[in-house]
Amino acid sequence: MAAPSTTSPPLTRASVQEAHQRIKQYIHETRVATCTTLNILASTPQSERCPSSGANTAYEPAPHSSIQQQDASSYTSQPHVRLFFKCENEQRIGAFKARGAFHALGRLIEDEGIENVRQKGVCTHSSGNHAQALALAAKTHNVPAHIVMPKISTPSKIAGTKSLGANIIFSGSTSDEREAVIREAIEETGATLIPPYDHPNIILGQGTQALELEQQVEDMLVNHPDLGVSGKKGLDAVIAPIGGGGMLSGIATALQGTGIKVFGAEPNFEGANDAEMGLKQGMRIKTVKTLTIADGLRTPVGEIPWSIISDKSKLEGIYSVSEEQIKAALKLLMERAKLFVEPSAAVPLAVMLYNEDFRKMVEQKAGKAGWNVGIILSGGNTTIEAIAKLFQPSTGDAERAEATISTDGSKKVENVAG
Amino acid sequence: MAAPSTTSPPLTRASVQEAHQRIKQYIHETRVATCTTLNILASTPQSERCPSSGANTAYEPAPHSSIQQQDASSYTSQPHVRLFFKCENEQRIGAFKARGAFHALGRLIEDEGIENVRQKGVCTHSSGNHAQALALAAKTHNVPAHIVMPKISTPSKIAGTKSLGANIIFSGSTSDEREAVIREAIEETGATLIPPYDHPNIILGQGTQALELEQQVEDMLVNHPDLGVSGKKGLDAVIAPIGGGGMLSGIATALQGTGIKVFGAEPNFEGANDAEMGLKQGMRIKTVKTLTIADGLRTPVGEIPWSIISDKSKLEGIYSVSEEQIKAALKLLMERAKLFVEPSAAVPLAVMLYNEDFRKMVEQKAGKAGWNVGIILSGGNTTIEAIAKLFQPSTGDAERAEATISTDGSKKVENVAG
Repeated sequence: MAAPSTTSPPLTRASVQEAHQRIKQYIHETRVATCTTLNILASTPQSERCPSSGANTAYEPAPHSSIQQQDASSYTSQPHVRLFFKCENEQRIGAFKARGAFHALGRLIEDEGIENVRQKGVCTHSSGNHAQALALAAKTHNVPAHIVMPKISTPSKIAGTKSLGANIIFSGSTSDEREAVIREAIEETGATLIPPYDHPNIILGQGTQALELEQQVEDMLVNHPDLGVSGKKGLDAVIAPIGGGGMLSGIATALQGTGIKVFGAEPNFEGANDAEMGLKQGMRIKTVKTLTIADGLRTPVGEIPWSIISDKSKLEGIYSVSEEQIKAALKLLMERAKLFVEPSAAVPLAVMLYNEDFRKMVEQKAGKAGWNVGIILSGGNTTIEAIAKLFQPSTGDAERAEATISTDGSKKVENVAG
Repeated sequence: MAAPSTTSPPLTRASVQEAHQRIKQYIHETRVATCTTLNILASTPQSERCPSSGANTAYEPAPHSSIQQQDASSYTSQPHVRLFFKCENEQRIGAFKARGAFHALGRLIEDEGIENVRQKGVCTHSSGNHAQALALAAKTHNVPAHIVMPKISTPSKIAGTKSLGANIIFSGSTSDEREAVIREAIEETGATLIPPYDHPNIILGQGTQALELEQQVEDMLVNHPDLGVSGKKGLDAVIAPIGGGGMLSGIATALQGTGIKVFGAEPNFEGANDAEMGLKQGMRIKTVKTLTIADGLRTPVGEIPWSIISDKSKLEGIYSVSEEQIKAALKLLMERAKLFVEPSAAVPLAVMLYNEDFRKMVEQKAGKAGWNVGIILSGGNTTIEAIAKLFQPSTGDAERAEATISTDGSKKVENVAG
């Protein structure tokens, strides 16, 4: 397949800063949210969290979680943290992907000239956020965008991409069928491929959110030092989701040399934790077949992202969580922090709240001083119906379901009024 | 029942300003959000909105709605508006009620002395947001709070109130049973009743959000004039939900003399629009029996709120919407604006988007210049399960449900890919 012909700057913090200057006018500087309840929860040992009232609707601090441990003794680590949520769910098109798309297209236009790019157009394959991101960037620059989507894509996603003026080309569902359709489109139109994550300009674009987060937290702590752990003036760590790895590698690149530690968060359902396993094996895993609810994270890590995240000077590590843990974190983000996010965006908080390896590590490294931890909320593109489906009680009514969410799959109903 | 013994200042803008100074340190100055998609939608005639792609997951402007009109010719009004959402769903305890509770308790403490109040305590009856608000205020001042809740209350709400340190007293479900239990509690403890809405200090406290919104919008427009309609430096109107009327009357009081027009928004299911009908009849309706999904708005208007909202110099009018319209607005707030709110909080946006009487009035009064409209998002205390229940498809799958939400109860499936 035709490689994109644009030049790419080196993968350094300075290049991310330059990318940020380039795309600033096209994207939102999304806000950073905090939530007392989630700070308390994250700083409470899992074994001491109240097991039954996770679905509690109170917004005020209440050290309760929906997690119900089987073996309390193994859940005793107590990291001391304050969380800072980067709300990329409120980014344009509802996800961070707008950053990479605007950067890659901007570079292409600079290299080839706007007239050339307008004549040939751009193309990609995606049924998700990257499709809409590229469609938006292309529309902004008045460039034709050809998006290959599987025929079976969600009608609302097709409509979303269409409403941004993109030309939708339908393909079959297998990757062979898709590749054939893209090749055909490129041959016909001369369009340049803008891949979803495995490209330096995409990586640099996605990394820009880390620069904002870093600065925003410093600014917040000047006026409200109580939002952070005592005495710290900025972030100690950032946790970001990893699917194809464009974002995580961009963030790791952006924060190099700052002393801020970068961690990846991955679902582990049906081997979705290919990056975590790849790091253990010292080798990139190239195929993944998973239907994790974190549907943005079903792809294997790309080649260039892998070269960055497998570099220990850039990434501290990757931690994974179960489907039930993702659901519990998603529920807390919505009900407690009032943040409407897609399941993929809940994975970093799930690691912070429920992965004991991660929590022990933080407890050890951060000590009593504690850490200010940035949590990347990567996107908010889901529907009420899709969320409802995830929380559909298999038996009993909704009330019962409130009391039975657990991270270990076990079920228990407890009437807190009793 | 024992009336609260505290003194109350006159119901004026100056008193709301004074209330704001008193409670500032205890509450959040909640943010004001904007959403391009919803601005475009609100400024598009209902007859010209795309009927099928309301559930579109794109965050970017796409003039589509989930509304499907039966008679296009009657849906042609085109108000020109920019919307400013006051996020009281992110207030402490997840709803504006914290404002009134802190104000009423603060006044009581000033009048009677903290020692007296600590000895006697405070009490109220509520199964919802006011219970948690009073529990929080009482906890903050180390005052005992006795909250009468029906035995059948949602366990999570009971747990939420309990976790704030309140003493829960269970009662039967009828108002007679409840009153008896409160009387008993007051006799035993000497606690002072802090009613949920029918009290001047509650009204003044709830009104404080309007002062913030007014100032915040002015500040936003200085740096980003493009967020508002052309040439305007502040708000033209505010729409707030009305149940008992504490908030709406507080907002009307706060904005008196500013030129900002205040409107009420009410559900009309099973006569829930008692305030709207009362205004038409020129007489307060004292009982309401409705199971509207906007569960915060099931109560009839209180006596003191009525005296304010029935004053035409203070309130412009009240408009009501159907259950399906509330659901459509709720869906848009979550999926497009990424704001997690409870159904009651979606009622003002539903009026803005779907009530043709309201839209025609705005079109006429605002003219081509348009209006900047404040929309009060009163609270976010709901659960994923409760939301899921509202959007449960009666037949077919979730995908089908996405295409069938309508304001008139009619169903139609349209495949936008076809």
